[in-house]
Amino acid sequence: MAKDKKVEQITDMEVDFAQWYTDICRKAELVEYASVKGFTILRPYGYAIWENMQRIMDGEFKKTGHVNVAMPVLIPESLLKKEGELVQGFAPEVAWVTHGGSEELEERLAFRPTSETMFCDHWSRVLHSYRELPMLYNQWCSVIRWEKTTRPFLRSREFWWQEGHTIHETAEEAKAETEQQLNCYADFFEQVLAIPVVRGRKTDKEKFAGAEATYTVECLMKDHKALQGATSHYFGDKFSRAYDVTFTGRDNTLQYPFQTSWGSTTRMIGAVIMAHGDNNGLVLPPAVAPIQVIVLPVAQHKPGVLEAANGLKERLIAAGLRVALDDSDNSMGWKCAQYEMKGVPLRVEIGPRDMENGQCVLVRRNDGEKTVVALADLESAVAEQLRLVHDGMFEKAKKNLDEHIFAASSIEEAKALQERNGGFIKTMWCGDLQCELDMKEKAGMSSRCIPFRQEKLGEVCACCGKPARHMIYWGVAY
Amino acid sequence: MAKDKKVEQITDMEVDFAQWYTDICRKAELVEYASVKGFTILRPYGYAIWENMQRIMDGEFKKTGHVNVAMPVLIPESLLKKEGELVQGFAPEVAWVTHGGSEELEERLAFRPTSETMFCDHWSRVLHSYRELPMLYNQWCSVIRWEKTTRPFLRSREFWWQEGHTIHETAEEAKAETEQQLNCYADFFEQVLAIPVVRGRKTDKEKFAGAEATYTVECLMKDHKALQGATSHYFGDKFSRAYDVTFTGRDNTLQYPFQTSWGSTTRMIGAVIMAHGDNNGLVLPPAVAPIQVIVLPVAQHKPGVLEAANGLKERLIAAGLRVALDDSDNSMGWKCAQYEMKGVPLRVEIGPRDMENGQCVLVRRNDGEKTVVALADLESAVAEQLRLVHDGMFEKAKKNLDEHIFAASSIEEAKALQERNGGFIKTMWCGDLQCELDMKEKAGMSSRCIPFRQEKLGEVCACCGKPARHMIYWGVAY
Repeated sequence: MAKDKKVEQITDMEVDFAQWYTDICRKAELVEYASVKGFTILRPYGYAIWENMQRIMDGEFKKTGHVNVAMPVLIPESLLKKEGELVQGFAPEVAWVTHGGSEELEERLAFRPTSETMFCDHWSRVLHSYRELPMLYNQWCSVIRWEKTTRPFLRSREFWWQEGHTIHETAEEAKAETEQQLNCYADFFEQVLAIPVVRGRKTDKEKFAGAEATYTVECLMKDHKALQGATSHYFGDKFSRAYDVTFTGRDNTLQYPFQTSWGSTTRMIGAVIMAHGDNNGLVLPPAVAPIQVIVLPVAQHKPGVLEAANGLKERLIAAGLRVALDDSDNSMGWKCAQYEMKGVPLRVEIGPRDMENGQCVLVRRNDGEKTVVALADLESAVAEQLRLVHDGMFEKAKKNLDEHIFAASSIEEAKALQERNGGFIKTMWCGDLQCELDMKEKAGMSSRCIPFRQEKLGEVCACCGKPARHMIYWGVAY
Repeated sequence: MAKDKKVEQITDMEVDFAQWYTDICRKAELVEYASVKGFTILRPYGYAIWENMQRIMDGEFKKTGHVNVAMPVLIPESLLKKEGELVQGFAPEVAWVTHGGSEELEERLAFRPTSETMFCDHWSRVLHSYRELPMLYNQWCSVIRWEKTTRPFLRSREFWWQEGHTIHETAEEAKAETEQQLNCYADFFEQVLAIPVVRGRKTDKEKFAGAEATYTVECLMKDHKALQGATSHYFGDKFSRAYDVTFTGRDNTLQYPFQTSWGSTTRMIGAVIMAHGDNNGLVLPPAVAPIQVIVLPVAQHKPGVLEAANGLKERLIAAGLRVALDDSDNSMGWKCAQYEMKGVPLRVEIGPRDMENGQCVLVRRNDGEKTVVALADLESAVAEQLRLVHDGMFEKAKKNLDEHIFAASSIEEAKALQERNGGFIKTMWCGDLQCELDMKEKAGMSSRCIPFRQEKLGEVCACCGKPARHMIYWGVAY
């Protein structure tokens, strides 16, 4: 039986947002399901987006003195259990290795769900003096968390990420690191992914298992649901004490260092899809697009057209851009649809008439805007259009965010606003866990963060009426 | 109790080569043992070497059209078992995941020892037409093989590698790919790592489980033992048939693609240590050295010295080099020893007298050669010296290789030569497994490869006296 590839339509996002998302993941060839339940394969086009994200982030991490390492993927159960809160948080999701070759292991080994324990164990053996601090480490790897329900990029039993782990001489330095890395993520979301974020602190209920404080960047998707973008944690010296990480201080006494960790994952690809995509497919920010410019020859059988198209491609590659040319036999309509599905930020068209006029046509993916440019100005015009693509995407996403933040003064009002509009619902909050649980139970929303930029919406908690301590954002989250 | 870091001597390689190797791994801060038996941690300096290797290799792979993907790390046992030879080869070394969270899995999952099975499973679902071929995939990841005895970089239960996997329309294309990638490895060893290699084919006994043919680059260490550098495999359509990977061919019939895989690992760092290191520590090829040039100020308390040293550093960074400056309070002697231990290819010294004379001193790590250069010529002089470091390292390693290849015409002679000199022993060979087993049993040597460059040393097999089919290299290998 012969198999033939078919081009199919994707579901409209207004009809079924979840199906629209899945359709893009598959049709843009980002991921494919594996034969292991709950696991996904990052296909070349999806992985190329991740590679671009990695390259840019890794460069930023290194600018601030971070270095990469590789820790073992398996963690002995006893080591994982040394810090009580962490293991309680992760134990239900751990995959266990129990056999090596034909022998059963004396102690079972956890596939890392996160690596604080391994870093601490390592530091307990190599750290000696305050002169060696800070240690600013990061690793790129995959982790496993045995989730019940999974969705490509958003929730997968295995996912790819970076996990930064640092230790510092003082609490102040560690806190500054936590904030610096949160801002690094926020800048990455806004300046690279064109996704505006809300920066804030997680509540005690929502913070990382074992952390003293967790900071987060929260963003809003096109269906007005919230997505946690990346997080940064401050641990104090809790893990240092649990894992006996010590150093000789300036005063010659033995001290415990202060610790942070911070992570971002392939879930960011899911954020890009849902923050920018449309009913024609993916819309990629130029900075991470595997192909930034697709060159399409019009009437390519006419003399000189292919050569001209190739010339444009070569010029743009020489200008440092990621460029492809499609000179296949497929129709112009098919090609346009194909590269729209793939989210290529800019299309360059050139045909016989353009050649006569010494021009080509640039078409932006995000808003369909066409610009005719003189061939002599190609490089600068393309750079300008790519900048406009990024800016246009950011502005549109910012408008979506700004127009979907609503103030409420009671749980009922918060619930009604969420049901009507989605988005972030901001209220005053007393800080009690019970109010957070009430909001979840009665309005179906979790706390997203206590934004750094506080507003005074009133005097009392929207849930219990007691004096308020914070303004907080609530939402329905991925 | 205060802990203080001590600088210790390393064992001389002539006294105890294995201990010398371990000492370098630890003292140059490349790796550290983990609390999981048989697992190692790649520390920042060791990982930085790997990152440089990755960047260069990845660039080469992409030049020839390869793309990166990420496959799941866990493989269902039933999937792993579909191809009989592969699973027989790897089953004794597989780590098994049997529990996810609190539940026991219905089918146990293998931590990938290699990923042919996952790639085939994926291709069986996404490949449709000859127009999609070839698929030229690669992934960077870690694998686990449950080895009994382990040594840093050389044999570790977890190691980091790249595994290329490709499928092609015809056997000829797949064979060409296998050779192309072997040559890519050979060029990397010689032009990047400064390690000369012997290229050849593995015997049936030594080839990869399930492969039709395995090609290898073999190199020689300073103790005259052999090390397999990297391998490239041709599978024919064996796996395609086992995993039902098919495509519609040009003639509209259903066909099986032809497959290759090829891999190189963090073991290459072990090769660099043992091919180039000396009794003062590591000697790194400039192309992969995390620090290519260390700038040391002489009499740094004297006015202007630190500024001058900083100026040199900035100029060399601007010239695209990886440069560090050590202005710590440690003595000049300690610093020189430290950067020799770390294998930094070139040392730049500048002090008050140099400044007066408008010069600085360059010292090569590999042979200790000093050159005084005018400050005006810094960039070109440093580039030239780094080139000479690479060339000098390669020539020395090439001399070691060339002087340690010996011809033998009997097992006894081969054994005597190996015992006296080490190195590669070349003989004629009939091609029979029994002769290979005899050589192993009587002379303690495994076959390393059947070199592409054949020589006719005689008419008959050195082991059995029957007509010879190949000239083959034997050795004691890591």
